[in-house]
Amino acid sequence: MTNRFHGIIGYTITPFSADGEQLDLPALGQSIDRLVAGGVHAIAPLGSTGEGAYLSDSEWQQVAQYSLERIGKRVPSIVSVSDLTTAGAVRRARFAQQHGADALMVLPAAYWKLSEAEILQHYRAIGAAVDVPIMLYNNPATSGTDMPVELILRIVREVDNVTMVKESTGDIQRMHKLQLLGEGQVPFYNGCNPLALEAFVAGAAGWCTAAANLIPELNQQLYKAVLAGELEQAKALFYRQLPLLEFILKGGLPATIKAGLAMTGLAVGEPRRPVFGLDDSGKATLQALLKQLGNAG
Amino acid sequence: MTNRFHGIIGYTITPFSADGEQLDLPALGQSIDRLVAGGVHAIAPLGSTGEGAYLSDSEWQQVAQYSLERIGKRVPSIVSVSDLTTAGAVRRARFAQQHGADALMVLPAAYWKLSEAEILQHYRAIGAAVDVPIMLYNNPATSGTDMPVELILRIVREVDNVTMVKESTGDIQRMHKLQLLGEGQVPFYNGCNPLALEAFVAGAAGWCTAAANLIPELNQQLYKAVLAGELEQAKALFYRQLPLLEFILKGGLPATIKAGLAMTGLAVGEPRRPVFGLDDSGKATLQALLKQLGNAG
Amino acid sequence: MTNRFHGIIGYTITPFSADGEQLDLPALGQSIDRLVAGGVHAIAPLGSTGEGAYLSDSEWQQVAQYSLERIGKRVPSIVSVSDLTTAGAVRRARFAQQHGADALMVLPAAYWKLSEAEILQHYRAIGAAVDVPIMLYNNPATSGTDMPVELILRIVREVDNVTMVKESTGDIQRMHKLQLLGEGQVPFYNGCNPLALEAFVAGAAGWCTAAANLIPELNQQLYKAVLAGELEQAKALFYRQLPLLEFILKGGLPATIKAGLAMTGLAVGEPRRPVFGLDDSGKATLQALLKQLGNAG
Amino acid sequence: MTNRFHGIIGYTITPFSADGEQLDLPALGQSIDRLVAGGVHAIAPLGSTGEGAYLSDSEWQQVAQYSLERIGKRVPSIVSVSDLTTAGAVRRARFAQQHGADALMVLPAAYWKLSEAEILQHYRAIGAAVDVPIMLYNNPATSGTDMPVELILRIVREVDNVTMVKESTGDIQRMHKLQLLGEGQVPFYNGCNPLALEAFVAGAAGWCTAAANLIPELNQQLYKAVLAGELEQAKALFYRQLPLLEFILKGGLPATIKAGLAMTGLAVGEPRRPVFGLDDSGKATLQALLKQLGNAG
Repeated sequence: MTNRFHGIIGYTITPFSADGEQLDLPALGQSIDRLVAGGVHAIAPLGSTGEGAYLSDSEWQQVAQYSLERIGKRVPSIVSVSDLTTAGAVRRARFAQQHGADALMVLPAAYWKLSEAEILQHYRAIGAAVDVPIMLYNNPATSGTDMPVELILRIVREVDNVTMVKESTGDIQRMHKLQLLGEGQVPFYNGCNPLALEAFVAGAAGWCTAAANLIPELNQQLYKAVLAGELEQAKALFYRQLPLLEFILKGGLPATIKAGLAMTGLAVGEPRRPVFGLDDSGKATLQALLKQLGNAG
Repeated sequence: MTNRFHGIIGYTITPFSADGEQLDLPALGQSIDRLVAGGVHAIAPLGSTGEGAYLSDSEWQQVAQYSLERIGKRVPSIVSVSDLTTAGAVRRARFAQQHGADALMVLPAAYWKLSEAEILQHYRAIGAAVDVPIMLYNNPATSGTDMPVELILRIVREVDNVTMVKESTGDIQRMHKLQLLGEGQVPFYNGCNPLALEAFVAGAAGWCTAAANLIPELNQQLYKAVLAGELEQAKALFYRQLPLLEFILKGGLPATIKAGLAMTGLAVGEPRRPVFGLDDSGKATLQALLKQLGNAG
Repeated sequence: MTNRFHGIIGYTITPFSADGEQLDLPALGQSIDRLVAGGVHAIAPLGSTGEGAYLSDSEWQQVAQYSLERIGKRVPSIVSVSDLTTAGAVRRARFAQQHGADALMVLPAAYWKLSEAEILQHYRAIGAAVDVPIMLYNNPATSGTDMPVELILRIVREVDNVTMVKESTGDIQRMHKLQLLGEGQVPFYNGCNPLALEAFVAGAAGWCTAAANLIPELNQQLYKAVLAGELEQAKALFYRQLPLLEFILKGGLPATIKAGLAMTGLAVGEPRRPVFGLDDSGKATLQALLKQLGNAG
Repeated sequence: MTNRFHGIIGYTITPFSADGEQLDLPALGQSIDRLVAGGVHAIAPLGSTGEGAYLSDSEWQQVAQYSLERIGKRVPSIVSVSDLTTAGAVRRARFAQQHGADALMVLPAAYWKLSEAEILQHYRAIGAAVDVPIMLYNNPATSGTDMPVELILRIVREVDNVTMVKESTGDIQRMHKLQLLGEGQVPFYNGCNPLALEAFVAGAAGWCTAAANLIPELNQQLYKAVLAGELEQAKALFYRQLPLLEFILKGGLPATIKAGLAMTGLAVGEPRRPVFGLDDSGKATLQALLKQLGNAG
């Protein structure tokens, strides 16, 4: 199974009406077109940034179907699939595949802490239900489940279509371990924005980022500089965009990315409650950061 | 608003069919009757033990309505209400009130970490939607949100019907702080089984526990010994049941309580996947623990 | 080997001259007389409160010898022995025994993290060097070494004169585990002031506390109330002294206890640098707390 | 004050006699000559690897004086100065300067947790006592004190001769923050071996490492590849030495480096108790790792 995913993989947001109740699919379409126009190498709908966890089943399906149609194979798509129950995750996985997803990203959400056997079985069930490749996603800060590298590699070995790993713990040493224990054969992706430079240097195949909604050129220039071995340039590009990367992480991706899109001409509403939109002070900071980077709307 | 909740508050489980897909409401009814017969002072449906987080909206409503009817005001009821969205939590809160819940227990579930302002607004919205008293529930291990005592007391002050606090961090010093900063006016409840003795000694009004499905008499004897100031007896009763309390906590409440009910004659199925049922080795240990306590089915 | 240690075990401070350079042994003598007059059941020189870690070898020996002479067997003594090297700890242990210590308290200080085998060997070497009983002391916050209950009990089994355990993690469940796994045969002591009530309720044989320098009567009344099974009174006594107990813990024991002694008429200098003495705001708070408790100098 | 420290800064070990009691200064001299011959850019005596914390004052002085004489200005020297008391650290700082140290590395060791004001005052006192530049050293795992970047930069601003920072938390984002908040003006050094590549890429001026006792050529080749912007080569060199870097960190630097020196012909004894030497299984692993890297003695 060859791996088509590399470089800058942009997350979509999920636009809502002003009261947070209705989906705004036309705005979603515009944001997808922006990502494609910005040159991302792939698009990832319904991730953490896309507030997938806050949607009803019906809304989730609408967003998945609409996103895949709008992407229209212009770039590869990888749909995030997550549900507290294995049955629910399997349903979403099948739905995404049926509607054309090129791959799935699977985060094992947990209320009750999961054992390694339970996590393995969860991936096994999802893997058996679809044919497309799966990117295992480790992000204990949102999922409550931290998968050690040894478990991750066991899942990769035992579940055929789990072929990629996304690491978001923020600990670069996890990527070293993936590289060493995976003997360079398991492509890994970075999901922690402030590690963008180091992850590429350590061998990450791609960077999954919501920043591509706001500064896609800078994201790509960084990737290209590393690919070209231009270390000084990569470092300069990284430190240039780092304040924005830290700001969106600290301020919450849905709130900050949605505010940034509004500043650059695309109204997409606020995050769904209880998550707040960016406050005025945050907006002023974001505006200043974007202006410094030449993208002030 | 007077407080009717004290003593042993028993959690219900949610029985499923063998494949985990269908609800088994008659078994739920029997488990509720057992709790009442066991002498619990109140019943709490749809908590963590009740796998409320793993139910669809429709299932959640069926379980809430059925539980409240079956309890039938024989003891007070407190229904756990939790949803990642404020709108969803409000809907569940209204539903529970409409169907006769005497109180609600509200845990602020989080995917994206919540700020204090977001948590306060979440409680404010739920409080405004219902008239019944609300027990604020702090359990970072499952919810991903840890509310410091200062925030908890601010919510109690600012939201009229938040009148009780359940603390499940496992740190007895949180209860000291609730007692001192709350000036003894805010009733607090213990949700950490291995702290049962200390919490009562520190002034907890009640103990919310799934153990009441298996050893209700021992739970009550402990409470009564503390009330009577029989310290040596309370200590002996506590250490007697502690191995079981630690076992069910460590083994996962849905898995262990469901296995224990099966051993004592009430088949309630297994937890919903990805959570596993108790394995054979765990069952043997549980059987031995129950036998020591005189409840071996 | 019978155990003579129970109840309130008071820590000594180590008085310095105004510049922190010289020992003030006469003031040390007065503080010891105060502890005895206050009714403590035993005295523990050179613990954390006694700044044992900040003394040169020669100073340490002067303080140990002087303290033991001044105590003069009026109450049992237990001298804290700690050194980064095993050889240094053995030397201090022998010195304390030679000068009449009734027991030793041993904390395994660490720069490089110690393995369980290294910790065991450390206790074995000290145990072999002396005849007096040893109280194993677990306090990861100061020592950097956290000994799980299983390791503690292994050391108790394997090193003959390690017969007592002092637990200062602040987690009451460690004491439960000592009680259950130790089958009630291993006396344990509480070193975390805010757990004073719960530790006694859970079965602690004693409370090692610096608070006995300031409020020895309240400390003892709490102990006696628990012994007498007077739960309501114990609870009231506990909550009465808790604000002071939390203050001295949070403010640093050497700084707060030394300030409190000065307020009550005994000048003992400040902690040795880099540790600061209590600042003016802290002194005002401490004065108010002591006044409330009827000990305002 | 110009900064002469860059590249590979090698730590010395402190050789002992077989029983751990006596210093073996001739062996220390040989190990220093090896470091110089290996091409390190500077030498750092008496650091964590050098067991400085486990030496008596007299031993510490002997090792400092001997090391500085033997280095003999062939490369710059930076002597680690650490003591629980400010007075003791000042004495060591003065001694090192008097005997020719080109710079000092200062770690704020703590028994009682230090406030930011206490840490600042500690550095101020040491800074005022000497003229040579000081490298502030942050390593919470060994010192128990974690200095946030904001505090570090405040100390750099307020204490004239604190001009360099060594970061050993293992979190690369601390270095990003040093670079951004320090506006590229504060040279920082990496003390976490597994971050060697990323730290250089992020802008670290040097890498302080005990590995230079065993694989100095590989350490330097990595540094030179980054300087030359040869990213692919740097990455290959990093992953080649990473298993050894992780092994020495996990196994404890004094134990593993001393074992490695013995394997390559220089007997330096074992670490001082309670720290154990490397066991047979560890020695076999180390031997294999060194053999793979072409340094098998």
